[in-house]
Amino acid sequence: MKIAILGGTGEQGPGLALRWAMAGEEIIIGSRSRERAEKVAAELNAEMGKPLIRGMENPQAAAAADIVVLTVPYTAHLSTLKSVKAQVQAKTFIDVSVPLDPDNPRRMKMPPAGSATEEAQAYLGPETKVVAAFQNVSAHLLRDHQQAIDCDVLVCGNDGEAKKTVIGLVAKMGLSAIDAGPAESARVVEGLTSILIRLNIRYKVKGSGIRITGIPR
Amino acid sequence: MKIAILGGTGEQGPGLALRWAMAGEEIIIGSRSRERAEKVAAELNAEMGKPLIRGMENPQAAAAADIVVLTVPYTAHLSTLKSVKAQVQAKTFIDVSVPLDPDNPRRMKMPPAGSATEEAQAYLGPETKVVAAFQNVSAHLLRDHQQAIDCDVLVCGNDGEAKKTVIGLVAKMGLSAIDAGPAESARVVEGLTSILIRLNIRYKVKGSGIRITGIPR
Repeated sequence: MKIAILGGTGEQGPGLALRWAMAGEEIIIGSRSRERAEKVAAELNAEMGKPLIRGMENPQAAAAADIVVLTVPYTAHLSTLKSVKAQVQAKTFIDVSVPLDPDNPRRMKMPPAGSATEEAQAYLGPETKVVAAFQNVSAHLLRDHQQAIDCDVLVCGNDGEAKKTVIGLVAKMGLSAIDAGPAESARVVEGLTSILIRLNIRYKVKGSGIRITGIPR
Repeated sequence: MKIAILGGTGEQGPGLALRWAMAGEEIIIGSRSRERAEKVAAELNAEMGKPLIRGMENPQAAAAADIVVLTVPYTAHLSTLKSVKAQVQAKTFIDVSVPLDPDNPRRMKMPPAGSATEEAQAYLGPETKVVAAFQNVSAHLLRDHQQAIDCDVLVCGNDGEAKKTVIGLVAKMGLSAIDAGPAESARVVEGLTSILIRLNIRYKVKGSGIRITGIPR
């Protein structure tokens, strides 16, 4: 599948790009700057020893892809959604954003819609299938693509088929995904990230995460 | 320590009462009806073979205890807080409540304060030290007091000392507690319960839970 990772030069983008590229997906890194996107794509290709990742501006990346992933800091959430609204219509749109309080990343500052995911769904309209995923996975661990990650990926959204697609893509990179319900569950899933950031700070670690227990695996 | 469990005849109360009583704490089951409280206390004592648990009306139970635990269904949250406001002043108050939507327990219906915990803190006033705990622990597993429970207890609240007390009480019953931050984190901790209920229904299990990964233990 062709997957565009918007804001893919930032925290979580490179790790997602590497892991999916190694698993055989066709990856486009998107950025506001084509040069930056191409530079990061070249670095990741060098790391893999294969030219599997391209770089483009966000709108071109979104237009070229079947699945679009948004990994920008929350302050750029709405402006990035605006820049790709036309290009993502009817596509599966994976929102990784976490509305952290810019003044204190151990706190959430949820948008009026309830969560970034619900905000994206409302803004992009009903044709686009917004799915939340990867919020609780440490960018640090994700980036080290040889490393196994002890964290479940909670996936939520209002379109069941789109969630199945995302759950499959999570599995492709060797992580386990759990369907956490409708888009509304993103209030919890996104919010958990602030608790994990708090634990990372307190325990001086870079990769706290969560596991769901007591369910069949 | 003397611990009153208000609404202790319901879902989570008996398990908490049994596990703490077995660990040597002095437990009072509270209920709106003294007869019901005494009946459940007698049943639990019979199960343990020792008369370690008493039953009282909620206000008397709260007055007699050092630590007060609230385990009523959310529909009785404010009315129960009202009935014990005077008796819990300056005490540590453990709120186990989860504001589930009465029409759909797989959904949350958060109060205007943001969470049940924040609502309790606002209603009881600054002298009472409200701490959230046990929301994500299956009542079913808790009740079977011989059974080990594969679930962390996320503890949050605005008073550090009170949180330490609660973390110690969680450890006493053989569970591991994690400090999840201020009272505001209860929006996530309480909300997780609706996701776990959803998973219990989907996988036909009674005890899904969560574990925090990637931190020193």
